Amino acid sequence: MRATGLDKRLHALTATEMVKLIQAGEASCEAVAQACLAHIEDREPDVQAWQYLNPDRVLAQARALDRQNASTGPLHGVPFGVKDIIDTYDMPTSYGSPIYQGHQPVLDAACVALSRKAGGVLMGKTVTTEFANMHPGKTRHPMDPQRTPGGSSSGSGAAVGDHMVPLAIGTQTTASVIRPASFCSVFGYRPTYGDLRMVGVKEAAGSLDTLGLMARSIDDISLYRDVLLDMEPTPLPPASQAPKIGFCRTPLWSELEPYTASLLEAAAEQLTKVGAHVQEVKLPSDFDSIVEIHRAISSFEFRRNFTYEIENHWEQISLTLRQGRIANGQACSYEQYCDARMWAEARRRQLDDIFASFDVLLTASVAGEAPVGLSSTGNPVFCALWTTMHVPAITVPLFTGPHGLPVGAQLVGRRYRDRQLLAVAQWVSQRLG
Amino acid sequence: MRATGLDKRLHALTATEMVKLIQAGEASCEAVAQACLAHIEDREPDVQAWQYLNPDRVLAQARALDRQNASTGPLHGVPFGVKDIIDTYDMPTSYGSPIYQGHQPVLDAACVALSRKAGGVLMGKTVTTEFANMHPGKTRHPMDPQRTPGGSSSGSGAAVGDHMVPLAIGTQTTASVIRPASFCSVFGYRPTYGDLRMVGVKEAAGSLDTLGLMARSIDDISLYRDVLLDMEPTPLPPASQAPKIGFCRTPLWSELEPYTASLLEAAAEQLTKVGAHVQEVKLPSDFDSIVEIHRAISSFEFRRNFTYEIENHWEQISLTLRQGRIANGQACSYEQYCDARMWAEARRRQLDDIFASFDVLLTASVAGEAPVGLSSTGNPVFCALWTTMHVPAITVPLFTGPHGLPVGAQLVGRRYRDRQLLAVAQWVSQRLG
Repeated sequence: MRATGLDKRLHALTATEMVKLIQAGEASCEAVAQACLAHIEDREPDVQAWQYLNPDRVLAQARALDRQNASTGPLHGVPFGVKDIIDTYDMPTSYGSPIYQGHQPVLDAACVALSRKAGGVLMGKTVTTEFANMHPGKTRHPMDPQRTPGGSSSGSGAAVGDHMVPLAIGTQTTASVIRPASFCSVFGYRPTYGDLRMVGVKEAAGSLDTLGLMARSIDDISLYRDVLLDMEPTPLPPASQAPKIGFCRTPLWSELEPYTASLLEAAAEQLTKVGAHVQEVKLPSDFDSIVEIHRAISSFEFRRNFTYEIENHWEQISLTLRQGRIANGQACSYEQYCDARMWAEARRRQLDDIFASFDVLLTASVAGEAPVGLSSTGNPVFCALWTTMHVPAITVPLFTGPHGLPVGAQLVGRRYRDRQLLAVAQWVSQRLG
Repeated sequence: MRATGLDKRLHALTATEMVKLIQAGEASCEAVAQACLAHIEDREPDVQAWQYLNPDRVLAQARALDRQNASTGPLHGVPFGVKDIIDTYDMPTSYGSPIYQGHQPVLDAACVALSRKAGGVLMGKTVTTEFANMHPGKTRHPMDPQRTPGGSSSGSGAAVGDHMVPLAIGTQTTASVIRPASFCSVFGYRPTYGDLRMVGVKEAAGSLDTLGLMARSIDDISLYRDVLLDMEPTPLPPASQAPKIGFCRTPLWSELEPYTASLLEAAAEQLTKVGAHVQEVKLPSDFDSIVEIHRAISSFEFRRNFTYEIENHWEQISLTLRQGRIANGQACSYEQYCDARMWAEARRRQLDDIFASFDVLLTASVAGEAPVGLSSTGNPVFCALWTTMHVPAITVPLFTGPHGLPVGAQLVGRRYRDRQLLAVAQWVSQRLG
């Protein structure tokens, strides 16, 4: 099939839709790539989602796929973006830090190699905050350039939200996938800890870090998850007509914007009306110390992980990072760190018990709409617990805030039950979305 | 202080002894480095422990330390070796694979940076098997060149055992620290999973991988552990005069050489005589499936972690690896992998309960002496359980086999109780060693 040329609509399709069109011979891989590139060219000056983007390299990949006689895999011809904390053999990777400006890894991270193996087209590297911590990159919110897109996977959230690519990979140590996805009105999925391999990803705090996937449909999330597990993609099972949903106001509920609390409460009521079994879940007070626990684990590990950079490139590390996670990690003793890990393990068992009664928990993704200002990427506390618990989570773009900007709702599943979580999220999204 | 020139005895000192001499002004860092280099020059043709060694670079580091007015840290002037699976900014790192021949990383792994921060002198890169799996490197047993030194941390075990360096870092996914340490008559310590950070280490199977430390004294192990945790070194507490020791014949006891079983049984009896409370521990039959469980976790992850190499450099991967861990990982389903992880988590809780009654468990490190032949690095099964359980372990050079070669005994501790494990190992070593 010959390239059909630039098609303005193609860029807004989901990955699943793109795959169907390409397989049916109704669009070439090159046409899809061209459409995404044209949209990026148009929008990038405002959004600045990309740390590295080379159209020639994108088109060369797409044309090579078009020259194949058959589909190379379940992502054949689908453009995807990769957070610039993740190594790529053919594009520089700077980890959001001037220390690594222009750094060229010699191999692909496992997630990139698995995406390419499935026929995906690597569009480019999306902007990350410095080392996936707090110091922001250049990206702006796609709907309001005065506002943050969220972080640390800022470019991945903005690129998918702005229809530049249908899929992007991020990473999360606290809230770095759920938060930008919520702000940018996309689905953001954080898997069960350990499932999606982190080889070739610059580690922040390995006991908490996971990949995260951003997309504009849950089918796309499920497809991409199967690809990254190197499994044959299989459609999601239908959710039960009456999923058991625990409505969980975490100990940090008071930090929510009042409108977000109201929207979540209304959603819980609405879910009952459409047939779900919704019941309030109050976490035991053991869970109250989550912020300190998360800080101990993340900072102790970060401080040691970045010894090379701290010893050799201190002046090129932001004050935010020096005075934040690095200082916290210096102040955290090994005993505090071990206590925190043991606390987390005990709470995971408690949470397993709670999940005996529920398919998923419904809770907040973020405090509210993306805040005005580019110096902060927003409040991360609503994810710290679930990240530390190693449970899968997905933010679903359900709400609109007072300024017309999106606010996601977070659904949290039991460890290793990611497909059940995605199926229930599909059910919820179809009824409330 | 001026360099005192070559001193033949210096190379055989422990790290703790070297530090004392250097601090007392009785030896320079350069003299220590020269002594180690001279010994290596003498022995390397037989042992072949080093993948990369550049004397000029070693001496430059030592001289720079000598130019400091004061000690730069607790390892000031101590030469250390690093398994060539671990990145170093100033020495190539080839991961035991022709794919990465001459590869030069741009930064130090966290463990290397922490060692240098403490004043250590990086001697060079020690030989690893291919990607820390089974296909052997060139290293031979220091006491018999017909025999394997064990693997995958082959060069680290041989270099410390042969007095080339007092300290070396290895890694363990199954038995890759305990086994070569046992064969080469050194202490080999595998920490509680997660404690010593793995940033900059080529991952095999991240749910199981840890660093491991090799040394010729337990004080050295403790010192190096403190350095790699970025803690102020503190001497080990004295062990109780009557440590509670569980003697654990694992489900795999029948794979031991009969002499090893006898030596371990005699050691258990002897420990009772010298005052320990020794009691037999029989693991519940739940633990019997450990070999299959370990295979599922290690191979599922390895297969996905190495997607880049498999897709792009298949012909440069050994048949051993292709037909072993990679094929196993391809055959392992996601469901089997999840079941294996859940099994491991449940067994860890059972083991915590068992440890309520014991300070440490005494068990086998290896089947027996290092076997003849360089095509295999020996039977790893005696470590698979403890590795999967995430517990700390140390092999203590207690025994001599029928050919006069060393056989270690393994002591296993409770998670996060590494110092207690080391203290009891000291107690045992002083009484039986």
